[in-house]
Amino acid sequence: MRISRRKFMATAAVSAGAWTMGVATSRGQGPLVDGPKLRERIESLSVFGRPSGGTFADGVSRVAYSDADLAGRQYVIGLMRAAGLDPRIDPAGNIFARRAGSDASLPPILFGSHIDSVPSGGNFDGDLGSLAALGVVEALDRAGTRTRHPLEIVVWSAEEGVAFGRGLAGSRIVAGDVKPADMDAEWNGLRRGDGVKKLGGDPGRIMDAVRPVGAHHAYLELHIEQGGTLERDRVAVGVVEGIVSIERYSAVITGFSNHAGTTVMSDRQDALVAASQLTIAVREAVTSRPGRQVGTVGQLNVEPNAPNVIPGVVRLTIELRDLSSDTLRAIVADIRARAAAIAAASKTRIEIADLSRNPPAMAAEDVQRAIERSTKALGLSARRQPSGAGHDAQMMAALGRMGMIFVPSVGGISHSPREFTTWQDCANGANVLLGAVLEMDRVA
Amino acid sequence: MRISRRKFMATAAVSAGAWTMGVATSRGQGPLVDGPKLRERIESLSVFGRPSGGTFADGVSRVAYSDADLAGRQYVIGLMRAAGLDPRIDPAGNIFARRAGSDASLPPILFGSHIDSVPSGGNFDGDLGSLAALGVVEALDRAGTRTRHPLEIVVWSAEEGVAFGRGLAGSRIVAGDVKPADMDAEWNGLRRGDGVKKLGGDPGRIMDAVRPVGAHHAYLELHIEQGGTLERDRVAVGVVEGIVSIERYSAVITGFSNHAGTTVMSDRQDALVAASQLTIAVREAVTSRPGRQVGTVGQLNVEPNAPNVIPGVVRLTIELRDLSSDTLRAIVADIRARAAAIAAASKTRIEIADLSRNPPAMAAEDVQRAIERSTKALGLSARRQPSGAGHDAQMMAALGRMGMIFVPSVGGISHSPREFTTWQDCANGANVLLGAVLEMDRVA
Repeated sequence: MRISRRKFMATAAVSAGAWTMGVATSRGQGPLVDGPKLRERIESLSVFGRPSGGTFADGVSRVAYSDADLAGRQYVIGLMRAAGLDPRIDPAGNIFARRAGSDASLPPILFGSHIDSVPSGGNFDGDLGSLAALGVVEALDRAGTRTRHPLEIVVWSAEEGVAFGRGLAGSRIVAGDVKPADMDAEWNGLRRGDGVKKLGGDPGRIMDAVRPVGAHHAYLELHIEQGGTLERDRVAVGVVEGIVSIERYSAVITGFSNHAGTTVMSDRQDALVAASQLTIAVREAVTSRPGRQVGTVGQLNVEPNAPNVIPGVVRLTIELRDLSSDTLRAIVADIRARAAAIAAASKTRIEIADLSRNPPAMAAEDVQRAIERSTKALGLSARRQPSGAGHDAQMMAALGRMGMIFVPSVGGISHSPREFTTWQDCANGANVLLGAVLEMDRVA
Repeated sequence: MRISRRKFMATAAVSAGAWTMGVATSRGQGPLVDGPKLRERIESLSVFGRPSGGTFADGVSRVAYSDADLAGRQYVIGLMRAAGLDPRIDPAGNIFARRAGSDASLPPILFGSHIDSVPSGGNFDGDLGSLAALGVVEALDRAGTRTRHPLEIVVWSAEEGVAFGRGLAGSRIVAGDVKPADMDAEWNGLRRGDGVKKLGGDPGRIMDAVRPVGAHHAYLELHIEQGGTLERDRVAVGVVEGIVSIERYSAVITGFSNHAGTTVMSDRQDALVAASQLTIAVREAVTSRPGRQVGTVGQLNVEPNAPNVIPGVVRLTIELRDLSSDTLRAIVADIRARAAAIAAASKTRIEIADLSRNPPAMAAEDVQRAIERSTKALGLSARRQPSGAGHDAQMMAALGRMGMIFVPSVGGISHSPREFTTWQDCANGANVLLGAVLEMDRVA
């Protein structure tokens, strides 16, 4: 499925040409999403939460439940209405809009993403998938294409987990991971229920937002990669095999805090030297076996943290991600063995404890194949790969078939104002989504 | 000069026996300090700044300029007066008391230490040397021994550098490292001048506290080792060769902060992995050559310091100590070379900058010999060693001959309530001080 950079660029140029000529279909492959309109909408949406006096390049802070989030949602709801849809907000604050299919007895094909952002985030994470979903419906309308299944587009609420953490993501609630008392939690003086109500949700009926298993025929989500591999390897589309398991551990390294001038080197029980060895050991344990697993020591705190005192205690986090829980199990065992050797050699104590564990969420094989067929029909290169980041699709995997489409992130930068995906790649992704929806409509 | 543990313990037992028998002299070596009284005074002084409801073992917080510091100083001033001395407070808040010698034209032999502590400090750091100095004068009085030189005992103010840092240590002012504007600095709402005034000093005349070079015949200070080498090697007395040079550097490691899930291992520019390698490199550069030099990464801060973000920037301190500035220069060059290799391999930038540099302060050879003669006469083992910690003696080296006597710290613990030196070792140290004062009285 891979094509050379040369072919890829040529294909891109052809597609770009097709739009500027206002041609709705290309090489007889059926309807196409309006690329320039997609770009215009991404740029328009970027205004809500943009730093004062800034430009598109200054990114966006559209944290869930903020006024900027509310304004952005109103903008998208307006676009849906203008497209002839009748958007409604579920009790969890998710925005849904449905296009009827020819067989009302069939479950809908659900697709979309989110538009909330991290603070100082970018303009593609979530926005692309949300606005491309609307573009897909509009393209089908323009082409007069009727699907068998109803189509349902969605803008999930509060995906980024900034407020209240990921526990109140709208998709998580729909997947059933919610209880009424969750609405009472507070964050920065905001009650969860009040936040949900601000979005137009109904915290008193929060349990009605839960959908049953089988509620959708398939869930599809277009998203930027948020990593640099597609761009680096010059592949147009990533077909997500699944969303990795995320395991977090805490490590506490206990040495002995002492005078940095009077304690000879051989007598030291330096917790930071041991923690440094452990940090390197985590990297070695992750990289010493084949595969795409990643491991990170992202947080590290030293006590007492003074230039003239030998560190007595270091606390750090170890985060591991992979599609395979077995691989993670083996890496953790490796890290534990290395930690024991480090502790013995450095006369420190190293305690590693579980912090959290999210199981992997696998994409359905037939959804992956549908995405691949769609990509092939467009003449784009594609490859299968895991998603190292969490997405709403992860939640939807609990209710039925799920698949995701990744497009390249320039420089792999994400959760940053510098996040960028070329407009060509945005349009490519929207068209792959459109084709995949049609492919899945034909799948039993 | 070293003796076996067995001989050491036997010697200790003999000395202990001598006190309980109330014998003022032992084996014809002249006067001895009253060991039980020294213990009693260290225990009494420990009350000032003791945690509420605590015991001696709970340590002391007698931070300079605090009410506890003031009360402790009043206690010591009272002891001096009871011993027939006429203590006076200089403009910097140092307490001096003088015992006349037979030749008033000679400069005094100065000896003492400090009684301020770090927060949650111990009862020996400074206290031992201050109270032993008084014990030396009393022992000479009891024995009717007259020295040629006047003897001057001192309790330096604000040695620990908790308030205002070491810049206002009383000994530093006496050594001339002071200017009138220093009195205007503020710390925790306290003006330096007001702190000095509280101690009975005279901030308006602060420059009058400065003494000229040659103001003393020699300066002597008894102190606990604050490290574990004397106890570990079963040596009774450390003869300080000098106070090490302390060099501090800051290192800033700049990588690239990115998503811990979506950034593959080979693409990472992880500042914490590089900082860990640098921390280990510092240890290796210090330990890979013979000598007693030490090096410490004591402070390390990670940005953004979140479990799911690859660290983008790490800032850390490197502190190096040795008697030889040449050795330190070679180690720094080694660290810089290792840092360059780490930066290249990890795709990070490592900038190492000077923070501060204290030159070494060497003990005078004839003072070291006087201490060794005193130790030998008492039948105690001794060895020469550097002081890894700073002391008031460091300042006095600027004005003339200086020497220090170290006694063992149990477990090498210091700046902690667990700081402890056996009462036998306290008495041994006081008697070595007494003998060294008499030895120096005979030196031209």
